[in-house]
Amino acid sequence: MIVGGVGGGMSAAARARRLSEDAEIVVLDRGEHVSFAGCGLPYHVGGEVPEDDLLVQTPASLQASLALDVRPRHDVVGLDPATRTLTVRTASGEERIAYDALLLSPGARAVRPPVPGLDSPRVRTLRTVADATALRSAVDAGARRAVVLGAGFIGLEAAEALASQGLDVTVVETAGHPLPPLEPELGALVADELRRLGVTVRTGVAATAVAHGADHDVVALADGTRVDADVVVLAVGVRPDTDVVAAAGIRVERGAIVVDERGRTSAEGIWAVGDATVATDAVTGERRPVALAGPAARAGRLVADQILRPATARPLPTALATAVVRVGDLTAATTGANRAALTRAGVDHRTVHLHPAHHVGWFPGAEQIHLVVHVAAADGRVLGAQAVGRAGVDKRIDVLATAIRAGFTADDLVDLDLAYAPPFGAAKDPVNLAGMVAANVLDGTLRLWYPEDVDDALATALVLDVRSGAEFAAGHLPGSLLVPHTELRDRLDEVVAAAAGRPVRVLCGSGVRSHIAHRVLEQAGLDSASLSGGMLTLRAALDARGSDLIVTAEPALAR
Amino acid sequence: MIVGGVGGGMSAAARARRLSEDAEIVVLDRGEHVSFAGCGLPYHVGGEVPEDDLLVQTPASLQASLALDVRPRHDVVGLDPATRTLTVRTASGEERIAYDALLLSPGARAVRPPVPGLDSPRVRTLRTVADATALRSAVDAGARRAVVLGAGFIGLEAAEALASQGLDVTVVETAGHPLPPLEPELGALVADELRRLGVTVRTGVAATAVAHGADHDVVALADGTRVDADVVVLAVGVRPDTDVVAAAGIRVERGAIVVDERGRTSAEGIWAVGDATVATDAVTGERRPVALAGPAARAGRLVADQILRPATARPLPTALATAVVRVGDLTAATTGANRAALTRAGVDHRTVHLHPAHHVGWFPGAEQIHLVVHVAAADGRVLGAQAVGRAGVDKRIDVLATAIRAGFTADDLVDLDLAYAPPFGAAKDPVNLAGMVAANVLDGTLRLWYPEDVDDALATALVLDVRSGAEFAAGHLPGSLLVPHTELRDRLDEVVAAAAGRPVRVLCGSGVRSHIAHRVLEQAGLDSASLSGGMLTLRAALDARGSDLIVTAEPALAR
Repeated sequence: MIVGGVGGGMSAAARARRLSEDAEIVVLDRGEHVSFAGCGLPYHVGGEVPEDDLLVQTPASLQASLALDVRPRHDVVGLDPATRTLTVRTASGEERIAYDALLLSPGARAVRPPVPGLDSPRVRTLRTVADATALRSAVDAGARRAVVLGAGFIGLEAAEALASQGLDVTVVETAGHPLPPLEPELGALVADELRRLGVTVRTGVAATAVAHGADHDVVALADGTRVDADVVVLAVGVRPDTDVVAAAGIRVERGAIVVDERGRTSAEGIWAVGDATVATDAVTGERRPVALAGPAARAGRLVADQILRPATARPLPTALATAVVRVGDLTAATTGANRAALTRAGVDHRTVHLHPAHHVGWFPGAEQIHLVVHVAAADGRVLGAQAVGRAGVDKRIDVLATAIRAGFTADDLVDLDLAYAPPFGAAKDPVNLAGMVAANVLDGTLRLWYPEDVDDALATALVLDVRSGAEFAAGHLPGSLLVPHTELRDRLDEVVAAAAGRPVRVLCGSGVRSHIAHRVLEQAGLDSASLSGGMLTLRAALDARGSDLIVTAEPALAR
Repeated sequence: MIVGGVGGGMSAAARARRLSEDAEIVVLDRGEHVSFAGCGLPYHVGGEVPEDDLLVQTPASLQASLALDVRPRHDVVGLDPATRTLTVRTASGEERIAYDALLLSPGARAVRPPVPGLDSPRVRTLRTVADATALRSAVDAGARRAVVLGAGFIGLEAAEALASQGLDVTVVETAGHPLPPLEPELGALVADELRRLGVTVRTGVAATAVAHGADHDVVALADGTRVDADVVVLAVGVRPDTDVVAAAGIRVERGAIVVDERGRTSAEGIWAVGDATVATDAVTGERRPVALAGPAARAGRLVADQILRPATARPLPTALATAVVRVGDLTAATTGANRAALTRAGVDHRTVHLHPAHHVGWFPGAEQIHLVVHVAAADGRVLGAQAVGRAGVDKRIDVLATAIRAGFTADDLVDLDLAYAPPFGAAKDPVNLAGMVAANVLDGTLRLWYPEDVDDALATALVLDVRSGAEFAAGHLPGSLLVPHTELRDRLDEVVAAAAGRPVRVLCGSGVRSHIAHRVLEQAGLDSASLSGGMLTLRAALDARGSDLIVTAEPALAR
């Protein structure tokens, strides 16, 4: 008996049938549809995917192909582990159904924050086919203004979809940047792209009320501003849908079902998978639900093995929470731990920023990948990676996700033998380069400074800009000294004099030239460091904190 | 002192400077250009990359940035390890140059087979900027017909480039299919794409002579046919350029320089990297030169460490020989060992074929990836993978290359946490699916049969086609029984009767439905197996061997 006919539940059902022709396999779902493409809902709103294409399977097709007894509109309202019985509500009333083995895949519900007015009919979540068709209908009916509450993955997919349909979209996010799991210096790039799409980005502010009007709603924000909306999409997160499970006495942890490595809950004969369960983070060991389709689908398959052939079944893997989203022409992706998670877990780490081209720069169509990689200070293991760019982002994050799963170090990234031809990469792929930079940092060949050190650097160090004069003129830090890296060896005395005993903090466009310069300066005996990711990272980081430090057209000051 | 200013040599020079400001670093190259984009030469012929963009660096730019003393047109003609002296030929005569440490990066030369007439001025290799500009000039001068000898990576890039410029191109390859490192069933797909581009593909035949005409050359083939050519590209492979090295008494093995894991040659104070060196295959342990830009560039960096800070330098990695090529709209890529290499090495393995969509099928633009993965029978370790398709191919091969480097098994592929959103992949990514199918094969849940078994199956088994009637009518094996998989459970008695005690060999379109059917049949007690990769793989495999076994519109025979 499987509760929940989307994601992990349906994956388990299909695997169970392949393992056993004899098993009676029943799938109960409260919804209208089973096995629908939940990840496709925003794309239906945006007109890219017709409704029919969202409905991957029907009860009839699943019966024909896999002899599954799939029952939509069956809402499980009670569960008694002792008697192995479910109480199910249907259109014709309540019934009790017995099971031998039970797999819970209840998923998650949209979080509804305590904001007055969220009961407006113009406010929709984006969890079901009905949600998507309602939003699509609103678009077709001429909605002009949309407010999206929450700039997580689903919120951004909704915002992109609505903007693509010509709506005037405002995204409201309480965190400081869109896609809060991203580092701020990458989130700033996503914010830029949203603005390019015509989306208004309101970060660091919460919605406080939705006022229902005759013609439209008005969303009030905590800073006193108000935004008119013909539709409001509520996408501030999800929480495990476990009220029935908890009421049955099954152990939950902050609302999520606790499972062991075999997917077993605290109750005999009951397993659970998916968004409603607690997962263990592969990098930090943190325990939390991970609401992602991929891990759920794969866990469903493994737990079917646990139920039907436990002797040879494998344990569930830990979670890397690899995720990706398209926002306009950009792709943003993440795997493993971010800086915040590493800090929470107390993992001493080093961070590198790179901006390599997704394939060799001299081949037409090269696009920059903005890449952040965290490695462990102790042993160089890769802990997490994030990337934003217009091409090749998902490939590098998938390679890095595989590397993290393997326990690879920065050195191992250097040695990866990745596919190179000019249309696809480089002899030193961005992943190789990330390993090289991180290995240099770990062994001391390269010493970095970071955008968060900029105030300190300006106050106490010589900031040395080794770009060209033209780049410098287009924007530089106030008080920085311009010495193009090609002139540095000849002008070393000048730099030493300008430093006057202070440290030298070098920067260039992306961190490549400043690395060379740092090596020159360090071997000349100076206290030197190179800005991680260069001006590209610095600009984004300053942007994320709303700073306006960079000046243009100021003559170089040789202080 | 570095001999060879492209690839590994230049990479070593740049690293050496970053490690040491004090070192005197001299780079000698026989050619006109140093640090040019060798991989870009075919794209210059095809008009995609201008000549200037091929010249990545110049001696002046390398002097300015890295204080390198780069000397083009310096041909090393002698080497005396005892006195640490090179003999170098330049425009002004011969000179002797002393070194403290010598890094050899001589690269490879094009193989020139003993075919009469290859000295025609219309015959060019594609190794230097001069080669590329000569071919480009021939195109600009109105060449109409090209013959490309060799359908390896460079041959196909040249063929694609010339076809894109409107030339009538014939590719001649002695192996049975283009891209000989690919499995034949994937090579057939590349041959199809070449034909779609208007290229004539002549496989399994050698050129025997090139006759020089006043107006054009004529290439004679071993089967007696003759092909007119305004240009001939010779791309039948490369051999290490090691005559000088071998003459100096440095140990070579079948022409390639023998190096240890630190890149050291048999001579004290001499290291070597790149196409001219012997590499050890990561999977099979086979020793051979690997002529690829990526490994050379990364080895150059590591060997610079070996020379300048040997105490902490890491060993050179073994070779996966990951490679990729664009052919028209197709991408073809490979990593690790192919079937031939595994057979040579005596590695017992299992092979799976899949044809998943590069992202979820219901999202617009889904393209099929034709994927072959080999795993070890003993422990399930991934040994090699190949893929052909229009999108997402390089990503999956890079993930699999990383997995092979990690020593991952089929089970580990299942657990990879790869980035999923509808535009990028699937909850079960093609790599996850490959792991699932391979794991099923390894633990006996799935039993496969292969295209090479087809004659035997037709002679001794019931071939059961579980596709739809329409698919069956469009092409099926003679004598096969049609029972759509959705009807199989109801018509099991009919299948048992038709089998009449014989084995049942099931097939469908790609192997997904036949897997389900196989599970039904096996659990019903039949000797069953599912065709690996289904009709898609079978058609390609039959195509590769020139077989015309598939029939259309024949009524289903229930023998």
